[in-house]
Amino acid sequence: MINQIKTIGIVGGGQLGMMMIPYAKRLGLRVVVLDPSADCPASQYIDKNDLIVAPFSNKEKYKELAKKSDVITYEFEHIDAGILSEISDSSIKGSKNVFPSAITLKLIQDKLVQKQVLENQKIPVPKFEEVNRLEEIYAYYDKHKKPFFLKSRKGGYDGKGNYHVKSREDIEVGFNQLKHPLMIEELADFEKEVSVIATRGRDGKIVVYPISENVHENSILDTTTVPANVSETMRKKIGEIAVRTLNCFSGVGTFCVELFYNEKKGEVSVNEVAPRVHNSGHYTIEACRTSQFENHIRAICGLPLGSTEMIVPACIMKNVIGHDDGKAQFVGIEKGYEIEGVNAHIYGKIDTKKGRKMGHFTVTGASTKEVQEKLKKVDIECNGVN
Amino acid sequence: MINQIKTIGIVGGGQLGMMMIPYAKRLGLRVVVLDPSADCPASQYIDKNDLIVAPFSNKEKYKELAKKSDVITYEFEHIDAGILSEISDSSIKGSKNVFPSAITLKLIQDKLVQKQVLENQKIPVPKFEEVNRLEEIYAYYDKHKKPFFLKSRKGGYDGKGNYHVKSREDIEVGFNQLKHPLMIEELADFEKEVSVIATRGRDGKIVVYPISENVHENSILDTTTVPANVSETMRKKIGEIAVRTLNCFSGVGTFCVELFYNEKKGEVSVNEVAPRVHNSGHYTIEACRTSQFENHIRAICGLPLGSTEMIVPACIMKNVIGHDDGKAQFVGIEKGYEIEGVNAHIYGKIDTKKGRKMGHFTVTGASTKEVQEKLKKVDIECNGVN
Repeated sequence: MINQIKTIGIVGGGQLGMMMIPYAKRLGLRVVVLDPSADCPASQYIDKNDLIVAPFSNKEKYKELAKKSDVITYEFEHIDAGILSEISDSSIKGSKNVFPSAITLKLIQDKLVQKQVLENQKIPVPKFEEVNRLEEIYAYYDKHKKPFFLKSRKGGYDGKGNYHVKSREDIEVGFNQLKHPLMIEELADFEKEVSVIATRGRDGKIVVYPISENVHENSILDTTTVPANVSETMRKKIGEIAVRTLNCFSGVGTFCVELFYNEKKGEVSVNEVAPRVHNSGHYTIEACRTSQFENHIRAICGLPLGSTEMIVPACIMKNVIGHDDGKAQFVGIEKGYEIEGVNAHIYGKIDTKKGRKMGHFTVTGASTKEVQEKLKKVDIECNGVN
Repeated sequence: MINQIKTIGIVGGGQLGMMMIPYAKRLGLRVVVLDPSADCPASQYIDKNDLIVAPFSNKEKYKELAKKSDVITYEFEHIDAGILSEISDSSIKGSKNVFPSAITLKLIQDKLVQKQVLENQKIPVPKFEEVNRLEEIYAYYDKHKKPFFLKSRKGGYDGKGNYHVKSREDIEVGFNQLKHPLMIEELADFEKEVSVIATRGRDGKIVVYPISENVHENSILDTTTVPANVSETMRKKIGEIAVRTLNCFSGVGTFCVELFYNEKKGEVSVNEVAPRVHNSGHYTIEACRTSQFENHIRAICGLPLGSTEMIVPACIMKNVIGHDDGKAQFVGIEKGYEIEGVNAHIYGKIDTKKGRKMGHFTVTGASTKEVQEKLKKVDIECNGVN
């Protein structure tokens, strides 16, 4: 298999795609990337001729990517699943392959359909409803009389595409602001958010990473702590539901299942599935035997997957999020590195802006307590300079 | 410091330079490479515009590299130390920096001078002699009446530049074949060869990696096993001599000290010092907290160095050496990856030839015995296809 592969095509050249590249190159493979931006993070690891600069709506450019690639994958789900499906169909001749499959991408892209698939398999999810007209939303509110989420079914991430409806007056604002079609989702009463990264090989075998505990700030992931601080009972329950969730979606590669849970109530609920490597899996680079990126590359190339076991007792990943606008300038790396077990990943984005993911760092150590203490001393930030 | 650095210039784009690049890019840095070959391994990780294609004798191209770089390093010692010294001298203005320093490179480049420096510091080395004329070599042979090494003082590696004189008749052949000036070195009676990788930071602090045990085939490194199978007494002695050796040469970055030793006789002798990352340190990528490449990048950027401790109990690195000529085609990766703890690094060289380093792989595991057993089952090779 690996001998038939010379070039991997990646749709999306953000940090997720970027972090796959060294693992592909280690195997002697060429990488070609499709991204709207000429200076996307992935552009740092490839030749300019291997970067196709075009919006994700440009079908012709997907075809160009396919022509150059033996295997295609993606780092972002809000892309053109239709054209990927077309490209994939031609794989009957064994020439093109899209991983994870375009059909899985299509199901997951639409948050309503994703939830319907999960509900159909009796996987616990927050209550949700399809809504199309304003009146339906008013009717929902009048019936339940409590806050809820109004969500775009497609295209949202990092809290974008979600509108928190707190009162009847909010409804029209959200309705006009969000991209349609929409859905409603209840505000679940959960304590924590966790996620489970897993990779499925071409042979169907799945390897599962440790459960990580995620804390968000302004709807953007702030920290991931591994191992998650959950009881043994909950660990089993979360693990079991995560694997059942994965089994709802075929497709080769790394996936992420985000879950809410309430230890007291003993309840777990699936928030979202991503058919790709995930921000909450960045910790695997320093903390696991095989990173989520390496296992993804192995999977799509048909190689046996590597161990997901942790090689350190504990790890915290912290995102470096832009807080103002301007040319990106990092501070605190030198001081941070004085603490053993700190590793920074700077994405090389030229401009920072409020809420933009500019980099991340991990802190590894002998215990969760130790890494939490270390983290307090590390202050790596990205400022905007004019 | 790191904030003043935007671009690292590397002289040499072979696999050693290549493996530094991802660690530089992780820090958000640009990398520019000078190499005689447009399709050198490092070319896979950078844009074509960041590769200066020119022979290592072209002084103007070093200057071009310097113009583009804030910091300069090298992955190969047989380069133009004179021009690096010139570039470095202009660093009084704080604009250019060469690491390790050009003066260290000059001392080490000349194997005779290197040995003289070590001998001067009372560091055990095999007996050696400067020789210039054929008669001097005959005189040496007639005096000692035993085989010895005739060596080029400059430019040799992987056994190239060494001639094993077994009889009086060999002398003239070696003399005519080798690049002058020459030196003589005794054939030392040693059981094993080990090496010690270490990195010196800008603050002068040195971090030392575990001792590795090296086996050569046809004068080319075949395997490196870590930890080395040496007694506690020898471990201390080797460590102490390695650090004393490093202290003979100033300069920031990763170094390698190769030593011979004889456990029975309790003797250790320094074979060679390399002012750069080293093939026998490749194991550090999978087996140590911080790889030799990462610590080199940290060092030259003025960052605190990372821990060199092993994160697995044992590791063997095996080189994949070309055994015939043709287009490179690897076999055995898929099967090799079925064994947990196997990681391949393919250098992306288009053509293979007998004796060329085409890649390497590491096998990690719970004990030396376990990794040796695993290694027997892994057969990753590079064939030449026409």
